[in-house]
Amino acid sequence: MNFKLVKSDDKSSARAGFIETDHGTIETPIFMPVGTAGTVKGIHQRDIKEDINADIILGNTYHLYLRPGLEIIEKAGGLHKFNAWNRPILTDSGGYQVYSLADRRKLTEEGVLFHSHIDGSRHSFSAENVIETQRIIGADIMMAFDECTPYPCDYDYAKKSMEITHNWLKRCMIRFDETEPKYGYQQSLFPIVQGSTYRDLRKFSAETIASHNSDGNAIGGLSVGEPHELMYEMTELVCGILPHDKPRYLMGVGTPENILESIALGIDMFDCVMPTRNGRNGMLFTKNGIINIKNKKWQDDFSLIDDEGNSFVDQQYTKAYLRHLFVAKEMLGGMIASLHNLSFYLWLVRESRKHIIEGDFSEWKGKMIINVSQRL
Amino acid sequence: MNFKLVKSDDKSSARAGFIETDHGTIETPIFMPVGTAGTVKGIHQRDIKEDINADIILGNTYHLYLRPGLEIIEKAGGLHKFNAWNRPILTDSGGYQVYSLADRRKLTEEGVLFHSHIDGSRHSFSAENVIETQRIIGADIMMAFDECTPYPCDYDYAKKSMEITHNWLKRCMIRFDETEPKYGYQQSLFPIVQGSTYRDLRKFSAETIASHNSDGNAIGGLSVGEPHELMYEMTELVCGILPHDKPRYLMGVGTPENILESIALGIDMFDCVMPTRNGRNGMLFTKNGIINIKNKKWQDDFSLIDDEGNSFVDQQYTKAYLRHLFVAKEMLGGMIASLHNLSFYLWLVRESRKHIIEGDFSEWKGKMIINVSQRL
Repeated sequence: MNFKLVKSDDKSSARAGFIETDHGTIETPIFMPVGTAGTVKGIHQRDIKEDINADIILGNTYHLYLRPGLEIIEKAGGLHKFNAWNRPILTDSGGYQVYSLADRRKLTEEGVLFHSHIDGSRHSFSAENVIETQRIIGADIMMAFDECTPYPCDYDYAKKSMEITHNWLKRCMIRFDETEPKYGYQQSLFPIVQGSTYRDLRKFSAETIASHNSDGNAIGGLSVGEPHELMYEMTELVCGILPHDKPRYLMGVGTPENILESIALGIDMFDCVMPTRNGRNGMLFTKNGIINIKNKKWQDDFSLIDDEGNSFVDQQYTKAYLRHLFVAKEMLGGMIASLHNLSFYLWLVRESRKHIIEGDFSEWKGKMIINVSQRL
Repeated sequence: MNFKLVKSDDKSSARAGFIETDHGTIETPIFMPVGTAGTVKGIHQRDIKEDINADIILGNTYHLYLRPGLEIIEKAGGLHKFNAWNRPILTDSGGYQVYSLADRRKLTEEGVLFHSHIDGSRHSFSAENVIETQRIIGADIMMAFDECTPYPCDYDYAKKSMEITHNWLKRCMIRFDETEPKYGYQQSLFPIVQGSTYRDLRKFSAETIASHNSDGNAIGGLSVGEPHELMYEMTELVCGILPHDKPRYLMGVGTPENILESIALGIDMFDCVMPTRNGRNGMLFTKNGIINIKNKKWQDDFSLIDDEGNSFVDQQYTKAYLRHLFVAKEMLGGMIASLHNLSFYLWLVRESRKHIIEGDFSEWKGKMIINVSQRL
């Protein structure tokens, strides 16, 4: 994997670049649609590629490990073959979902014991086996095993958790070096900075992570309920320490505003369920603001969903029709909103990239944040 | 509306033809995907057109009347404008859904009083107002108001119900003649033969319906639980009476086998929720038989869904992946199965048409019925 910087912004820490993988090139900054169980909910792979034109999608190790399970994925020849997606895939390590979804989990130095949220069956994730799992899934970018601390989190717990995460990272890297890709293309491993909202922990964690000289680096444990200002403060601090010449991935972020602010702080990669999950609940993100399409005010608005939008759905369906689909609880409603939102998120990062390259990112960002944050 | 016969089969009553409407030509025999509330569930209009290439879709008057309601549809400029479908649309009269869905309904000579299954609100359908409603919806083909008798149905009730249906038809036709299309294109009205499974009632009803010399004629009250042989017997009897030079529509039918047999009896038009509803439950219809994709046997079958299929989904996704989507209850599962099934149904009627024209329909049908009916 190679990362090349194309341009750094003069008035902010924003950067434009690209990541080269064996499954193709990813232009940064990038937003990665979340394909939890090997599918971006409600969207055909063809449309993720041809309509949204996403350079990379995510898979969730926890979900894929439970269903369809590693045996099936390995027999298929990896996740790319299994779900018919031939561009890059990033998988998380499973740690976050173990904490947010699994039943009766128990954290030890060794790893995490948990019961499946689906059938109660008993499983364990460790630094070593999540690497092996991601080798089987065949992600182009694998993530190290970490604990994502909640917010608020007391200092002592945040420190201890960070130390466990650092220890797990060492073990992940050893197992990563001991193992080979299974399907003939390269895989990279990104470590994750933790440390909750404590400056000294974040600084120490970022220095530790930076010292490993990995292909890319991630920031975890943010966007978990803390005030946005605190998230930006931690992101800025960590971006100042992480290597300049490697991509930086801010995990689980966020709103359009969060993404623009974080690009300005030096983030290159984002993922979030917001465009699809909120889309399925009738929330549309547009360059002019946020629409709750279920509101009665849209019931006889026969204007296009987004006449400046890039997705075919923007030019095909009206707001009144989309509202009707949500009121009638029709599948097509969530399908349209998900496509629209992801298309908008990809537009947002591509437009950011364009303005970084053209040199007017900061001015553009200032105006755009006002627009995208308002309620229509 | 014009109907032109291209070819009649020598060894059966099958016919190939086409129906010309102001929204385009419909090649017959045709299968019409059901778009209940203005959406064929789980499929983008673009894909109904470009992937399935359906010549016409259905809308359900009962559903559209309740949601989004006539005011919205009229403001939109009719259903075609509202749901962005510019090919022909057929609407039923609402009678069937009033009986299968609405609460506390009461049938009188005048019409039906009922309470909405959505919010309990009180409504009435009459011969006159369902015509007005379908004028507002703007269907290219409107259906007369009828009562669809259940199976079994005692003779006296079937006779009385048929008489009411005939009486309603007269009133429908008067109101149809008194009113004009609202949106600048022609609308046709199809009457419906009833009479349950009684030969004398079906004969009388078919003669009554035939006497009106409508643009097309429908057969209702079948495929409601009666043995298939009885359905075919009634269909054959009625097709022998309905005009040869007008399209014949067998409402709510059916399985691939039902469709092939009914084409052989002289039916030109079909609709059924089976390809989409059963698709959402994991049942796939193929030219080699029926697949329950949830079965464990498909879990590691990495062959394409249907390597001879016409839909892009057939060539993109594997059976193992589709099974995984159903097991994980992912939206994409129902989306794929619905597209596949409709694509197969359209293939089936088009292939029938081709063989009718080529003169070997009966031989082909005999072989195909064995294939499509088996369980894989």
